[in-house]
Amino acid sequence: MDSKYNIVSLIRKKRDGKTLEKEEIQHLINLYTADEIPDYQISAFLMAAFLNGMNDEESAAFTEAMLHSGEIVDLSHVAGKKVDKHSTGGVGDKLSLILAPIVAAAGVPVPMISGRGLGHTGGTLDKLESIPGFTVDMDLARYKEIIGKHNLVLAGQTKEIAPADKRLYALRDVTATVESIPLIAGSIMSKKLAEGIDALVLDVKVGSGAFMKTTEEAIKLGEALVGIGTQFEKETIAYVTNMNQPLGYKIGNWLEVEECIDAMHGNGPDDIMEITHLLAGTMIYLGGKAGDVSEGIELSKEQIENGAAFRKWLDIVEEQRGDVEMIKSPQKYPKAQFEFEIKAKQDGYVSAMDSFEIGMASVELGAGRKTKEDDVDPQAGIVLQKKVGDKISKGETILTGLTNKPSAIDAASEQLFGAVTIAETKPEAVHLVSHTIDKKGSRAFEL
Amino acid sequence: MDSKYNIVSLIRKKRDGKTLEKEEIQHLINLYTADEIPDYQISAFLMAAFLNGMNDEESAAFTEAMLHSGEIVDLSHVAGKKVDKHSTGGVGDKLSLILAPIVAAAGVPVPMISGRGLGHTGGTLDKLESIPGFTVDMDLARYKEIIGKHNLVLAGQTKEIAPADKRLYALRDVTATVESIPLIAGSIMSKKLAEGIDALVLDVKVGSGAFMKTTEEAIKLGEALVGIGTQFEKETIAYVTNMNQPLGYKIGNWLEVEECIDAMHGNGPDDIMEITHLLAGTMIYLGGKAGDVSEGIELSKEQIENGAAFRKWLDIVEEQRGDVEMIKSPQKYPKAQFEFEIKAKQDGYVSAMDSFEIGMASVELGAGRKTKEDDVDPQAGIVLQKKVGDKISKGETILTGLTNKPSAIDAASEQLFGAVTIAETKPEAVHLVSHTIDKKGSRAFEL
Repeated sequence: MDSKYNIVSLIRKKRDGKTLEKEEIQHLINLYTADEIPDYQISAFLMAAFLNGMNDEESAAFTEAMLHSGEIVDLSHVAGKKVDKHSTGGVGDKLSLILAPIVAAAGVPVPMISGRGLGHTGGTLDKLESIPGFTVDMDLARYKEIIGKHNLVLAGQTKEIAPADKRLYALRDVTATVESIPLIAGSIMSKKLAEGIDALVLDVKVGSGAFMKTTEEAIKLGEALVGIGTQFEKETIAYVTNMNQPLGYKIGNWLEVEECIDAMHGNGPDDIMEITHLLAGTMIYLGGKAGDVSEGIELSKEQIENGAAFRKWLDIVEEQRGDVEMIKSPQKYPKAQFEFEIKAKQDGYVSAMDSFEIGMASVELGAGRKTKEDDVDPQAGIVLQKKVGDKISKGETILTGLTNKPSAIDAASEQLFGAVTIAETKPEAVHLVSHTIDKKGSRAFEL
Repeated sequence: MDSKYNIVSLIRKKRDGKTLEKEEIQHLINLYTADEIPDYQISAFLMAAFLNGMNDEESAAFTEAMLHSGEIVDLSHVAGKKVDKHSTGGVGDKLSLILAPIVAAAGVPVPMISGRGLGHTGGTLDKLESIPGFTVDMDLARYKEIIGKHNLVLAGQTKEIAPADKRLYALRDVTATVESIPLIAGSIMSKKLAEGIDALVLDVKVGSGAFMKTTEEAIKLGEALVGIGTQFEKETIAYVTNMNQPLGYKIGNWLEVEECIDAMHGNGPDDIMEITHLLAGTMIYLGGKAGDVSEGIELSKEQIENGAAFRKWLDIVEEQRGDVEMIKSPQKYPKAQFEFEIKAKQDGYVSAMDSFEIGMASVELGAGRKTKEDDVDPQAGIVLQKKVGDKISKGETILTGLTNKPSAIDAASEQLFGAVTIAETKPEAVHLVSHTIDKKGSRAFEL
């Protein structure tokens, strides 16, 4: 009770809408990391921060405290500016698997630490692990070895990286304190800054399948992220991109790897390639290998055309102990046991595909987790035959579901059927990218 | 995750400012009582409820759920309407010890369950336990036996009474979620309703030594308490009373028992007797032994004058195994080892005595607890020689401190000196009781 930074008084301060000093936030996170504050005090603090907010200084102090709860990786043995990309999460969002090899092939080191899927969104680690043998768990020494060798590493969060964030995130998940912009921004940035990066590209998703449902919220989150990056002197560029329908045609772990292999062979769907090249081009620009983003995009395209991205991909799969034969001949991958189709009940145009509902149906089929303890099925998922704007006739297949859990088919079918809207007239095309945010602020996207 | 009442979704609902259904609140409290929800989820809920509030229906459902987490005592073996009194807590507030014997002597059964002191406020149980041998811990059978025999029982909260409240209160204490009107009201009323009462009188303290610092807040709390009582069909009357200076002249456990013995002998200080008779008179009226509060007050005074209250007090002390000789001859009680005086540095009138500071100084001297684990010293405390409005000369003693901890004297002296204000002119007298609140609402107090 006599401690200078009495924990109850810090909770009370945030509860009463006051601003915490940098030292107070550090004290709170440090004691929590040291197991000297119980979860129930931190969860009360998180709810107070959720409801009363945190200003830029508090958010930066929060990020810094979580960052310093672990190690900041020293990548000085790797030449060049290290650049990573982070997405706030979507459905069918497999872009990391394509752009990381592209950017590394273009000469910019990509030290990428990713997460697992939870709820309706997939996770890069689950997709990578659908490749037989592929290993994402490694210690820091191995992490540094791989990036040094290949300009690329695709890893899970090691125990050394922002351990406070790992614990806080788990606590937020069960206390309804996830959807807070300063808390989300601190969580993302503490992990990314710990990777040893010099610059960062952010893909802030907006729409039915994203955490941010409105463009206004997405811009706020993007500004918070870029603000923290700027305070830590890491050049950070964010794009607000559309997540009202799934990205590409495939949702599910191995299904998405398959689509990425196609993309690296030059056969990627338009929506995927447009955003992939924008993000990869921006990374190449921030990595100093292009004079501007447009030039970066040209270099990105070259890495696909000349096969360098696919070769980089084979190298990293082999290095991380994945089965390279499966990447070379994806048709050998075993199929899910059960397949079912959703067909149109009328003629018209696909006018909407609710990506939240489609993501939740894919979870139902086994592709994702409802709780952190669930296993994921690498074969399960959904293949779209149509996307928004496509003409469709009555009886034609809109999408196919794949699962090893026949008991899930009824509920998933119903959910998937309800997720698709068919209209008489063709919907207006939407822009995939709406805003650019950098240290100068946010503005409508144009290239 | 599939449960109808997913706990995260209930937290989210309160977080988003929505109203919880009665069944939802019951579900939350029931699962918590059954140890099926961890503290960290409840503390997030409590902070959300603290910041977003609860309406009357939610507050009643919360009270009911806590009430039904334990037993509701059946006092049907005791004839007459059972009436209790509750105070929101103050400094020198020893009224329960005087009014309970008065009311019982007047023929109204008083089943009184009290709490311990925490922070600057004292607790009735600590005062009772300063009487050598006095036992407040008992099971329900013994509780019912004593009230049946004496029309009075002075007990601590048994494990059967509102166990959910006991756990929630401990959690609120360490998560900065104490000072919320619906949470305070639910906590108080769940315990009181569980006692088996038919009616209740509430003493809502306001001022420097009370939890409610403004009359407006105190009225709100009083209305919330009376609202819950009314919903449970227990006639409830609340008074808002002044706690800007300590009640009476003595603060500290045995010191307050001493002052109560004097009061029962007809020698009580004016402020104590005014409020005691008002509260006791109201209890006698609600118990059906007087036609109105004024008549109740006359009956209350009679119990002092004819010695019936003191006889009832001796009976209950004996029944609860206290040392009756000490009550008959309080001068035999051992004194604290160290005594020190605070003297006036100027001539004038005592214009203010900050009861929060005086309460905290008494804790420092050993009379109260800083944390729930602390022991209290029955001998420690403060005796006021002057009260607000009294004339004083330079060098005259304002108050005396008593302690067995000589190391505490310096800090307590400084705190006590700072707690007293001396002015040149006599301050205006303040009304001890400002408002009456009953089911018809709140209004300025008048008798």
